[in-house]
Amino acid sequence: MGIYFDEIGNLFGKYSKNTEKEESVMVGSHIDSVKNGGRFDGVVGVMGALEVIRTIDKNNIALKHPIELVAFVEEEGTTFGSTLLGSKFFIDEIKDFSRYTDDDGVFILEKAEEFTIKKDYKKRGNTPIKAVLEMHVEQGNVLYSENITIGVVTNIAGVNWLSIVLKGQSNHAGSTPMHLRKDPFPTAGLIINEVEKIAKNCPFSDTLVGTAGSIKVTPNVTNVIPSEVEINVDVRDISQKGMDYLVTNLKEFAEKLIEDSEIELFIDVEETAPPIKLSDKIMNIISEKAEKRSFDFKHMHSGAVHDSSLLAKKYDVGMIFVPSIDGISHAPEEATEYEDIEKGANVLLDTVLELST
Amino acid sequence: MGIYFDEIGNLFGKYSKNTEKEESVMVGSHIDSVKNGGRFDGVVGVMGALEVIRTIDKNNIALKHPIELVAFVEEEGTTFGSTLLGSKFFIDEIKDFSRYTDDDGVFILEKAEEFTIKKDYKKRGNTPIKAVLEMHVEQGNVLYSENITIGVVTNIAGVNWLSIVLKGQSNHAGSTPMHLRKDPFPTAGLIINEVEKIAKNCPFSDTLVGTAGSIKVTPNVTNVIPSEVEINVDVRDISQKGMDYLVTNLKEFAEKLIEDSEIELFIDVEETAPPIKLSDKIMNIISEKAEKRSFDFKHMHSGAVHDSSLLAKKYDVGMIFVPSIDGISHAPEEATEYEDIEKGANVLLDTVLELST
Repeated sequence: MGIYFDEIGNLFGKYSKNTEKEESVMVGSHIDSVKNGGRFDGVVGVMGALEVIRTIDKNNIALKHPIELVAFVEEEGTTFGSTLLGSKFFIDEIKDFSRYTDDDGVFILEKAEEFTIKKDYKKRGNTPIKAVLEMHVEQGNVLYSENITIGVVTNIAGVNWLSIVLKGQSNHAGSTPMHLRKDPFPTAGLIINEVEKIAKNCPFSDTLVGTAGSIKVTPNVTNVIPSEVEINVDVRDISQKGMDYLVTNLKEFAEKLIEDSEIELFIDVEETAPPIKLSDKIMNIISEKAEKRSFDFKHMHSGAVHDSSLLAKKYDVGMIFVPSIDGISHAPEEATEYEDIEKGANVLLDTVLELST
Repeated sequence: MGIYFDEIGNLFGKYSKNTEKEESVMVGSHIDSVKNGGRFDGVVGVMGALEVIRTIDKNNIALKHPIELVAFVEEEGTTFGSTLLGSKFFIDEIKDFSRYTDDDGVFILEKAEEFTIKKDYKKRGNTPIKAVLEMHVEQGNVLYSENITIGVVTNIAGVNWLSIVLKGQSNHAGSTPMHLRKDPFPTAGLIINEVEKIAKNCPFSDTLVGTAGSIKVTPNVTNVIPSEVEINVDVRDISQKGMDYLVTNLKEFAEKLIEDSEIELFIDVEETAPPIKLSDKIMNIISEKAEKRSFDFKHMHSGAVHDSSLLAKKYDVGMIFVPSIDGISHAPEEATEYEDIEKGANVLLDTVLELST
């Protein structure tokens, strides 16, 4: 297997024994982790791809297309402060590299050089790609709670991040009578509650999710009336329509709340990623292969983003989910039954073979 | 004027020219400040007392009782982590001194020794006290918004600090569908809002105040469903009944909210201070003196605690409030018109004279 790298540090292993075609079937995921994260998120997809290649090699299975294992860097964005950096570079979407430095101020390309240039690796260059496959832990509780082993990913949800700022007037909590207050926190409380309410009661989408995940209260001292509250809200759906529904309704709700008060309201959409549709063709192959092996499977969307989200902009991409025990992820308790990983890897193998023979 | 100190660092200045009685009229406040605080909170009362003594001395006014100026240490608790330490020591209520150390681990008595023992001060000893007077900035917006100069303090509100903890289950904000969540934050939002609602709508008390001042969300990351939310609530009223009303109603509200959910709720009353009634006799003298000088005055309670809160447990205590511009306090912008301080100091002078001649 030839080992290659690119300038940002993505690693590739190309298995091309007796293949006649140039286009490769790319299989893999990422091996970086969030801080204090688990051992399965990303790694399962890279190890699964390695196992697929080992199995093909061991059994001397003849291929037409090369299989290209990939381990993307910085999927989680832990070191360089932005997610999906490896795959973003791979599809040629990074415009300004100088934005990405680690805590010591080292630029990402310098860091990548440290890890790759000294080794005996070759540059990947521009090998064409026929299709991309990624196996990943679900990071949610859908498969585990329904006791299903294989998730056939149909869509990856888009994301909107809202910043909602409410400004009032700080004051002494003891000496300021209720009628002389401009406390933004009670209003913020209702907005936090409304996020869940709107997401739960959307009349047309059951894939819409909304989360008030973080808050900053100024000054955040028990005996001081807050001057300002900022709430950050994560909104996702597989359709832009669903996300728009939440954002619009939440804005209307918040504006109405402050109508007759002296509280000031500022709502900004800070980050957005569009919803992604994965390849129907590959989806069908995955389902077929799971069925053939008599594994329980279901079509489902991914609420989390993945390297596949970006790769799908350029290539035919398929994703296979395996269950996360209790839906736990990004925590040391993150786990998947090894038996489930084996089943996922077998579906991955069958799908790779279908695409590369 | 004889200068004295006690072991915790409180400073006393005793003016006793030709006085015949032993009992002193104590006048003063504190000179410490919160971090990033203002120049008026406390200082106005100490400088006012000094001015009262200067005026009496300059005009050779004959007194029966000595006047004792006091500057208490650690009213704000900024250095040793607990409020009202100077006055607490003065009324002999500190049981365990070893609890109080500064950031460098220096014990409060050691620190006090540094500041006092090397000087040529005498120990105060046990001079009896006839009455205590404290002039202070209001730290609220009542006097300023009503354009009144003198506040005659009738009561000091009691305080309850509540800790409200809601526990749920952390998870990925993208990959966890709404129906599989145990997010404690939406419930917390309604509780935050309810604090204000209950305090505003109490049927029998318009002095009740309730403030959700601080919050801790775990992990407080936008794309993660929180596992835990802690809200800290400050409840004050001049009657225990008012505080109990808020605490009881808030508990009932919160318990009902979580009834059919898997969210766990823990409510604790963490700190309490009882409401204090100041001396009717001194209150009447202050009112009379303000009226005589044709200053606008009103009877009012203090929502903030003061050294007077503790002194009132042992002595007859009176407090005079002067307006805080825009009600601002504990901030660099904290201010009081010098003209108002002068008026307050004149009422203080007249009251001191009434009590000591």
